[in-house]
Amino acid sequence: MAGRILIADNVATNRIVLKANLASAFYDVSQSADGAQTIRIAIKESPDLIILSSDLPDKCGITVCEALRRHPETREIPIIIVSSSSDPNTRLLALKAGADEFISKPIHEEILLAKTRSILRARGAIEELRENAPSFTDTGFAEASSGFATQGQIAIISADPARTETIQQSLANQIRDRVETLSPDAALKGFRNKTSPDVILLAANSTSASEMLRLLSELKSRQDTRYTPIVMLLENPHGADAISALDLGAHDIVGANVNAEELALRLRTQLKRKRQADKLRENVQDGLRMAVIDPLTGLYNRRYALPHLKHIANRAKGSQRDYAVMMLDLDRFKQVNDTYGHAAGDAVIREVAERIRASLRSVDLVARYGGEEFLIAMPETSLEQARIAAERVRRIVEATPISIPGTNHQITATLSIGVAIADSATQTPDDLLKRADSALYVAKSDGRNQVSVSEHTH
Amino acid sequence: MAGRILIADNVATNRIVLKANLASAFYDVSQSADGAQTIRIAIKESPDLIILSSDLPDKCGITVCEALRRHPETREIPIIIVSSSSDPNTRLLALKAGADEFISKPIHEEILLAKTRSILRARGAIEELRENAPSFTDTGFAEASSGFATQGQIAIISADPARTETIQQSLANQIRDRVETLSPDAALKGFRNKTSPDVILLAANSTSASEMLRLLSELKSRQDTRYTPIVMLLENPHGADAISALDLGAHDIVGANVNAEELALRLRTQLKRKRQADKLRENVQDGLRMAVIDPLTGLYNRRYALPHLKHIANRAKGSQRDYAVMMLDLDRFKQVNDTYGHAAGDAVIREVAERIRASLRSVDLVARYGGEEFLIAMPETSLEQARIAAERVRRIVEATPISIPGTNHQITATLSIGVAIADSATQTPDDLLKRADSALYVAKSDGRNQVSVSEHTH
Repeated sequence: MAGRILIADNVATNRIVLKANLASAFYDVSQSADGAQTIRIAIKESPDLIILSSDLPDKCGITVCEALRRHPETREIPIIIVSSSSDPNTRLLALKAGADEFISKPIHEEILLAKTRSILRARGAIEELRENAPSFTDTGFAEASSGFATQGQIAIISADPARTETIQQSLANQIRDRVETLSPDAALKGFRNKTSPDVILLAANSTSASEMLRLLSELKSRQDTRYTPIVMLLENPHGADAISALDLGAHDIVGANVNAEELALRLRTQLKRKRQADKLRENVQDGLRMAVIDPLTGLYNRRYALPHLKHIANRAKGSQRDYAVMMLDLDRFKQVNDTYGHAAGDAVIREVAERIRASLRSVDLVARYGGEEFLIAMPETSLEQARIAAERVRRIVEATPISIPGTNHQITATLSIGVAIADSATQTPDDLLKRADSALYVAKSDGRNQVSVSEHTH
Repeated sequence: MAGRILIADNVATNRIVLKANLASAFYDVSQSADGAQTIRIAIKESPDLIILSSDLPDKCGITVCEALRRHPETREIPIIIVSSSSDPNTRLLALKAGADEFISKPIHEEILLAKTRSILRARGAIEELRENAPSFTDTGFAEASSGFATQGQIAIISADPARTETIQQSLANQIRDRVETLSPDAALKGFRNKTSPDVILLAANSTSASEMLRLLSELKSRQDTRYTPIVMLLENPHGADAISALDLGAHDIVGANVNAEELALRLRTQLKRKRQADKLRENVQDGLRMAVIDPLTGLYNRRYALPHLKHIANRAKGSQRDYAVMMLDLDRFKQVNDTYGHAAGDAVIREVAERIRASLRSVDLVARYGGEEFLIAMPETSLEQARIAAERVRRIVEATPISIPGTNHQITATLSIGVAIADSATQTPDDLLKRADSALYVAKSDGRNQVSVSEHTH
């Protein structure tokens, strides 16, 4: 689907010219003629972009912009303010009111289109994150503005050290963020061992523009900077290089004559967006973690354990090293539940899970496999090492009685453990699980609280 | 971090030249001198890209490529084969063996770098998906090749209808996928109301190259095509336009003289990748769904319900319409559990959940709030409508006894329901929940199996 764009202008010919500008990309365009109507349509239709005239008959565009930013249903919609003024103070006011861009007439059609593509691309990415994490968050401007107060890290990259220094100094009075300066080469080498910056300013002059565009592409292809907003400073912010920069993934363009306050504002806007997007990505991660973690014990659940076991098996095939699988089951657990109730049973499972985890390596997989059943997979482990580990786990669980919270009771829990080892490339994870399970059965029927090792079947 | 690249070539000077080519971007380069060493290092270090000479002392590069594609730990690593041959059949063999690209010497440094950026960017995106969904899948070449057999949809876009027709005809003998042809304008308008294609071929000639690059940017900025692989056909596949296309997000470049078999192979490779990525994205979605769904009833869980309620409140503020909140609790549920056991209790909860859901609108939120407690939120709903809906739910649950699976028992379940309505912009979701909860308490203490409506507090 092409983006939906709302054009707000009371002069019909202006709307027609704008619409014609956007026509080559076949966007869905709707129109409004005053501020109140703009707000109404924006709430109802939730367009992907609003192009707002600075002069509307009922309210000035900046006031409309502020109103849109206050309303929960419109506060995230990108806004470009179009004005016949090119006064830097007006532009600053518009940006402060929350406009994403301020364009002075006459409008450069190609730049408007490139800016539109860039805005729609960024909005699409955020919308996707938001759809993925709708439930865990209501992240919006309110939350973001509190993050706004915390210090960020801005990197200025330029081939001209004097230039970077000037910019750094002019920013010093405007923002409290840490600002580092780097050469292009240092940037390519430099983020390697430290945290990457929150925002990057690529400052080009007429001779370095193509080098900087290539650097932009390079940074966009790298793991640690591909989500980092990049603001590009260009001699001519309306020329072909600006269009290229936007299409290559730059988030914002400023001219070489930008004043320090505006530059600071634009960098901080990108910083804020970065934080919002990071937060959304974290929420997605949290949601995914919840799907694979057993809430009672914090161990991985069965859903996670089985594919992960496959992965361990694949790696083992590559490294030609053995790996071990164990099935563990709490002995006579039903008695605990029946005698002391479910809360006590839960406390026992939680404590045993914690002891199992604490007595294994971080590379070992520990999962809650069922009610009172656990699964362990140990990569690069011999039969003897697995037997020792299993015995250690058994002993640690048996050694100290478990206190039942809110009571004076203590329960001594014990584990039966079945161990199996993959000793040739042909053992599938399923085979191994079955063998560990049979060994567990032997441990149970031999009297519980013991480790049984699966005999090889060949 | 810059990407890690393994250069496999037995001629030291070749390795040095390649390494120098890659130096400007400061990649981490490791080296190997024969096929066996290449496979060993690839398994151990899992580089982001392997640049493989077609002539290695122990095996030919294509054989090494096949071996890498078979091994589970290396099958996803991108491979560029470098050869002194420019024979189309050799190139075809390399691509069939699973190479991502085949480059004939002399190597165009800029193209190699652009291709490397493109490969690392695509790999980064896939790796991120895979990290997000490691547990739900083991999607790799094995699974993908089964999908390989199903028909895909390929769109050829060109400003030259005769050209598109020729390409379409030449592909007809090679692939079974549906191939549609479009003009650039039709493409911009055209995917609007139907499903977007799996792969797009943008065919440019010398006069239309810049138009096609712009179209590429436009398609990349759109929701429905931003994940669609785009193969760009260019008069000169080694020139500046090719570099621009790769940096703007094209996934592959072919020359105008490409033969039909190679073109088909490259399109099918992109199709396969698209399917893999779609599958991974689905897995992430599934994982996220699991995090917000109550497994017993399939209703949303509390974790989802509370932020969603906030969202309903925000929308209500915008539309100036009322919304209703209900708390519902199964009457004397403990008796069911104690008398018939947990399985019977679960069956009752599941059936009641289903009846509640079936008797409400799709815009209403229905969540399992606790053990036997449910939450309903109804947007754009008046007090009277909410009361009627609550009464309907109560009646439907009471009306038909619930069969307990595996037994002859039937249980008549009843619900107590508390209703509250947000009638002014100042009512927070928390206030409403409290009022619905108080109303539920009244319904319980008045004798259960009834609806109680919260009296307004102002």
